[in-house]
Amino acid sequence: MAATPSLLVISAHAGDFVWRAGGAIAAAVLRGERATVVCLSFGERGESASQWLAGKSLDEIKALRRAEAEAAAAALGADIEFLDLGDYPLRESPEAVARLVDVYRRTQPTVVLTHTLTDPYNGDHPAAARMALQARVLAQAIGVAGADGSFPTTDEIIGAPPVFFFEPHQGEQCDFRPNVLLDITDAFPHKRAAMECLPAQKHMWSYYTDLAVRRGVQVRRNAGPNLGLPHETMGEAYVRYYPQVTGVLE
Amino acid sequence: MAATPSLLVISAHAGDFVWRAGGAIAAAVLRGERATVVCLSFGERGESASQWLAGKSLDEIKALRRAEAEAAAAALGADIEFLDLGDYPLRESPEAVARLVDVYRRTQPTVVLTHTLTDPYNGDHPAAARMALQARVLAQAIGVAGADGSFPTTDEIIGAPPVFFFEPHQGEQCDFRPNVLLDITDAFPHKRAAMECLPAQKHMWSYYTDLAVRRGVQVRRNAGPNLGLPHETMGEAYVRYYPQVTGVLE
Amino acid sequence: MAATPSLLVISAHAGDFVWRAGGAIAAAVLRGERATVVCLSFGERGESASQWLAGKSLDEIKALRRAEAEAAAAALGADIEFLDLGDYPLRESPEAVARLVDVYRRTQPTVVLTHTLTDPYNGDHPAAARMALQARVLAQAIGVAGADGSFPTTDEIIGAPPVFFFEPHQGEQCDFRPNVLLDITDAFPHKRAAMECLPAQKHMWSYYTDLAVRRGVQVRRNAGPNLGLPHETMGEAYVRYYPQVTGVLE
Amino acid sequence: MAATPSLLVISAHAGDFVWRAGGAIAAAVLRGERATVVCLSFGERGESASQWLAGKSLDEIKALRRAEAEAAAAALGADIEFLDLGDYPLRESPEAVARLVDVYRRTQPTVVLTHTLTDPYNGDHPAAARMALQARVLAQAIGVAGADGSFPTTDEIIGAPPVFFFEPHQGEQCDFRPNVLLDITDAFPHKRAAMECLPAQKHMWSYYTDLAVRRGVQVRRNAGPNLGLPHETMGEAYVRYYPQVTGVLE
Amino acid sequence: MAATPSLLVISAHAGDFVWRAGGAIAAAVLRGERATVVCLSFGERGESASQWLAGKSLDEIKALRRAEAEAAAAALGADIEFLDLGDYPLRESPEAVARLVDVYRRTQPTVVLTHTLTDPYNGDHPAAARMALQARVLAQAIGVAGADGSFPTTDEIIGAPPVFFFEPHQGEQCDFRPNVLLDITDAFPHKRAAMECLPAQKHMWSYYTDLAVRRGVQVRRNAGPNLGLPHETMGEAYVRYYPQVTGVLE
Amino acid sequence: MAATPSLLVISAHAGDFVWRAGGAIAAAVLRGERATVVCLSFGERGESASQWLAGKSLDEIKALRRAEAEAAAAALGADIEFLDLGDYPLRESPEAVARLVDVYRRTQPTVVLTHTLTDPYNGDHPAAARMALQARVLAQAIGVAGADGSFPTTDEIIGAPPVFFFEPHQGEQCDFRPNVLLDITDAFPHKRAAMECLPAQKHMWSYYTDLAVRRGVQVRRNAGPNLGLPHETMGEAYVRYYPQVTGVLE
Repeated sequence: MAATPSLLVISAHAGDFVWRAGGAIAAAVLRGERATVVCLSFGERGESASQWLAGKSLDEIKALRRAEAEAAAAALGADIEFLDLGDYPLRESPEAVARLVDVYRRTQPTVVLTHTLTDPYNGDHPAAARMALQARVLAQAIGVAGADGSFPTTDEIIGAPPVFFFEPHQGEQCDFRPNVLLDITDAFPHKRAAMECLPAQKHMWSYYTDLAVRRGVQVRRNAGPNLGLPHETMGEAYVRYYPQVTGVLE
Repeated sequence: MAATPSLLVISAHAGDFVWRAGGAIAAAVLRGERATVVCLSFGERGESASQWLAGKSLDEIKALRRAEAEAAAAALGADIEFLDLGDYPLRESPEAVARLVDVYRRTQPTVVLTHTLTDPYNGDHPAAARMALQARVLAQAIGVAGADGSFPTTDEIIGAPPVFFFEPHQGEQCDFRPNVLLDITDAFPHKRAAMECLPAQKHMWSYYTDLAVRRGVQVRRNAGPNLGLPHETMGEAYVRYYPQVTGVLE
Repeated sequence: MAATPSLLVISAHAGDFVWRAGGAIAAAVLRGERATVVCLSFGERGESASQWLAGKSLDEIKALRRAEAEAAAAALGADIEFLDLGDYPLRESPEAVARLVDVYRRTQPTVVLTHTLTDPYNGDHPAAARMALQARVLAQAIGVAGADGSFPTTDEIIGAPPVFFFEPHQGEQCDFRPNVLLDITDAFPHKRAAMECLPAQKHMWSYYTDLAVRRGVQVRRNAGPNLGLPHETMGEAYVRYYPQVTGVLE
Repeated sequence: MAATPSLLVISAHAGDFVWRAGGAIAAAVLRGERATVVCLSFGERGESASQWLAGKSLDEIKALRRAEAEAAAAALGADIEFLDLGDYPLRESPEAVARLVDVYRRTQPTVVLTHTLTDPYNGDHPAAARMALQARVLAQAIGVAGADGSFPTTDEIIGAPPVFFFEPHQGEQCDFRPNVLLDITDAFPHKRAAMECLPAQKHMWSYYTDLAVRRGVQVRRNAGPNLGLPHETMGEAYVRYYPQVTGVLE
Repeated sequence: MAATPSLLVISAHAGDFVWRAGGAIAAAVLRGERATVVCLSFGERGESASQWLAGKSLDEIKALRRAEAEAAAAALGADIEFLDLGDYPLRESPEAVARLVDVYRRTQPTVVLTHTLTDPYNGDHPAAARMALQARVLAQAIGVAGADGSFPTTDEIIGAPPVFFFEPHQGEQCDFRPNVLLDITDAFPHKRAAMECLPAQKHMWSYYTDLAVRRGVQVRRNAGPNLGLPHETMGEAYVRYYPQVTGVLE
Repeated sequence: MAATPSLLVISAHAGDFVWRAGGAIAAAVLRGERATVVCLSFGERGESASQWLAGKSLDEIKALRRAEAEAAAAALGADIEFLDLGDYPLRESPEAVARLVDVYRRTQPTVVLTHTLTDPYNGDHPAAARMALQARVLAQAIGVAGADGSFPTTDEIIGAPPVFFFEPHQGEQCDFRPNVLLDITDAFPHKRAAMECLPAQKHMWSYYTDLAVRRGVQVRRNAGPNLGLPHETMGEAYVRYYPQVTGVLE
């Protein structure tokens, strides 16, 4: 459709967007689209056990994780910003949502990626998803002011971009039943490069490479065996939240 | 992808494909694709009350409904065939499924449309869907023979075409939660012409025109208010059964 | 509404209607309505362990269970008939459904009671429900003949009576989430009398009396503490399958 | 039952009760019952785009929407009050719930209508429903004080009135599967008059008239074709949240 | 596995743990394990109607319920503590969760029991469950400080203990579909003794004794008729929230 | 409990039990229990594409797959038998169920493993599960005769063994949400040896080895990080169908 493609990724912690949506981000950038990542926290408490064990301070840990996330975003070709809301728990508030409303209006996303609404293993993920979804609706209303109270400005409201939930750990326990399988074969080298910007989680590099292979097998199986997709097809899985709008069934 | 587009519509009764999928069929034909409709029955017992009241015989009713369905298919630009399995109830059997396997292999569909798997108001619809889905899987296996026992022929097996369920009456009671909204604006005049080939159900013409308007409103709402879709957008709703395979999130 | 009240109860085995719907049946009869019970089998194989252990023959067991069910129906004030389709497993067939179509047209039910569609402990129950629901739809169509092929007769087709599923054993495993709580206080003595017609299952008398007490507590709780329902309120629980049609929200 | 009928409608924004429950409200008033509408906000930010575009101030918009809502309530014969909690987002708080507890105890509702608990298109609706449901439970407890701290007064606690969710936009995406179809034929002229008190949403008049027609068709279909309901039956759809308490299955 | 068994029960109100988990608690104590009960509130507003009617003050009611709960815990052999967060409504907050994190780290539970996540009759129960689950995840992270800000201490983080939801009132309305049936035959006398420490709810003694009998019947039925479980088997039902980890399918 | 452990695995095709339940089978055998595999078909049509392409006849393919399955069963230490019901489609019939009733009574299983009830990619799997579940219930009834009509024999009826569904391909599309994670570390070498008896599917060897590693990670995560399970823990995932009966929550 007419809007300029713009991808917005709302991530609870600093690393989530790399593992879970790195392929979609790199693919969008490869197509010449803009991609923006918003990290609601750095994951400084819940996902930095080794740094705490090494005696790092809170500020050191946040700085470290920020630097890693910036490097990974650069490897994917995406812009990145940090709201620094704190994690474990990530606290929901109208003020945080208002800041996200500003992000939506500034970036005018045509596609939004975020976490699933259910995750028994990490409450920050659903909290991020709830705020991302609430802000998306508020940003559509001309009567809703910006976070600084500026009010109202017609040219800033957004349309109704589709939202996709990316894949959680232990997805079966998170009601994650993917209805979109994304072919990320061409984008995968960039995703791999971004993963390698996160050296503390080196064991995840092969985990997420293997996952991309398995999702690639499903891309091929659901497309049919005789359609000529190569054996090395790589994939990512998503749940589309709103109905798809299309001119063609395919 | 590489396969030549071919649309296969499996309909329990002679009229279902017109009301529920006429837009998708006409749109495919307008794009130059092939469309094939298979009617498992004529709807001679369950959907022909006025003819029974008028004293028509079973054979007369079947002939009448066949002629109407052929005219409607012609208006849409689709091929049509009839398996004449009987309705109310539509009886499932391995033999009927085998005939559908032959249809799949002959038409090599890239998209399949059929009924929902749940319908408390009409058991023939889920029965049709079960047979359509079973035949789709069997048709992929080289070891499965044709209905006449011919066996096995490599070049006939099919890929894994996506399946879409079309909209039932009283969809809320049928677990129909659409995840695809199809823009049928350009195709709608053809759908209307096909509906007018079914004069006995004249009250349905306006019902399904109104439904297309309402689904068109949802097309626009889910695409966002500022994307320039015209007010007269017409739509049809579908449930995609298998995950979507795509190279782009959009 | 205008139709004469007529209750139809479709029961997989000879005793089910007593334990599960005896209160509803007796209440209808007390209001002067007609009630008809159809037992699809006698429960001769799956629910007659003590008779088999006592060395009874199949015919003896069937006769015994028929006699007990007739006595229980009499205690409730209901008509009863037996299709003798066999149990464990109860086999579904178009012929059995056609016989049920005849029952529907003959009794013109305004309310239908049957089993739940899910029961991991007894496959005969869902089979009975599937046949009861299919026959209800077929009986509405003028084009569907009777079981003897007689065809078609305008004055026999039925309306669309509401269907209620009665309470299974271990309801939580059967997706039984009741949305109707029936006050059977006045009818309970008749239900108790009917239960006492089934001496082989004497331990069930107190089980189902206790259940009626507990369901009665829920009747009172869901109606509110201050509405004056007596402490000895007795109840039965049901799931309404189709939406309720009403002129008043209450 | 013994309580005097009293209908309480809890609406997130000023107009919701008209479109979604106007028939039920007018029908209750026609039966001589009391009806009270509580608007939690005016919908001043999220549902007043045209006023913002026309350069109106926040206070002007709130005054305008209050006046329209009052006129609509008068056309239905209902009392109306406004909590002015703000919208987009409607903020949940124990203080707002306490004010609703007071409303419950003052109006002693025998029936409650509110929004669905799920709505991906508008977070204010589920927020209203959550507060309505929480207040309903608190209002039953003698130990819970009023919003002003007054404490405790035996004669004020309420029973357990049934709750019905009214129909959202795009109900399929809101898990709206109606289990009650309300015949509003006689009340519809009053609903239409109330709708016409909201001139800014003139395009909704025909939308909701058409919806009433379609729900009326479902009223007739689920009641059966031969029960003599007129062709012009009008309807509204609801989801009953708690089990129905009844003395008769019908 | 290697950890010392420690049972943690998180209860919204002072009495919940007795009725719903008394058997599991006593059974753990009989096996020589430690059991700790945390009452988030005393149930002073929502579950003390008779004391309010008798003119007791808030402090008197809280003291009374504390004494009863302590006696019941002693009868079961469990430790007990009270967070006094207030009830009706039980307010969720990060501070309350932080206090629970401390409890988790102090008691190092190997099994956790709490309420279901859904309860249309009492919002305090899901609120307690949400806090119990959130604290369980936070307590696993070395970067999460204690409630007093003490930070970080390696030896305090916990593992991932299984969580079981205990049985609510009107469980069918609470999505309570038990997947664990616990044999509490030997523990039942202790549960009964604990119930008798709550004289104000004397009518519950027989209710929960009967429930234990019925759950005991289900223990026997699901174990099979020929396994030699005695007729007087008593049971409690639970929902396991996370997947079971086991070395043996049984 | 008192019964001698006996594991029964009901598999639609000849290879399913190896990939999906090989670990559970080998673990049972290592504990000294008996394990019996029943293959309902050889998978001769649906899962033997390479043999068909190589020009093998139906009988040759069946013989080949039988030999492979026998070798794999031997590697696991299990007995194996074949009902040869045909595949693609696997046809359900009362006669086939009666043969399974005989198997149940002969093997007296204390644990049953079979396919999931939903599988959009392979209809034979749910068909096998339906027959396995139906036979399990029938085998408990003394009134149900054997497949040869022998009737009735008290000592043959079975108890109510728990049933576990094993993991399908693309489990997310099959409603497979595992609630049991089985530690198969010690049994894995035997599973690997059994897999290597199926040389035509060599690419599956590494796929299922990797899956066992991933399920092993989940075993460790759900047991908690500090419980000392080794890094090389291997796992299989299951869905328990009936509630677990236990004396200890753990």
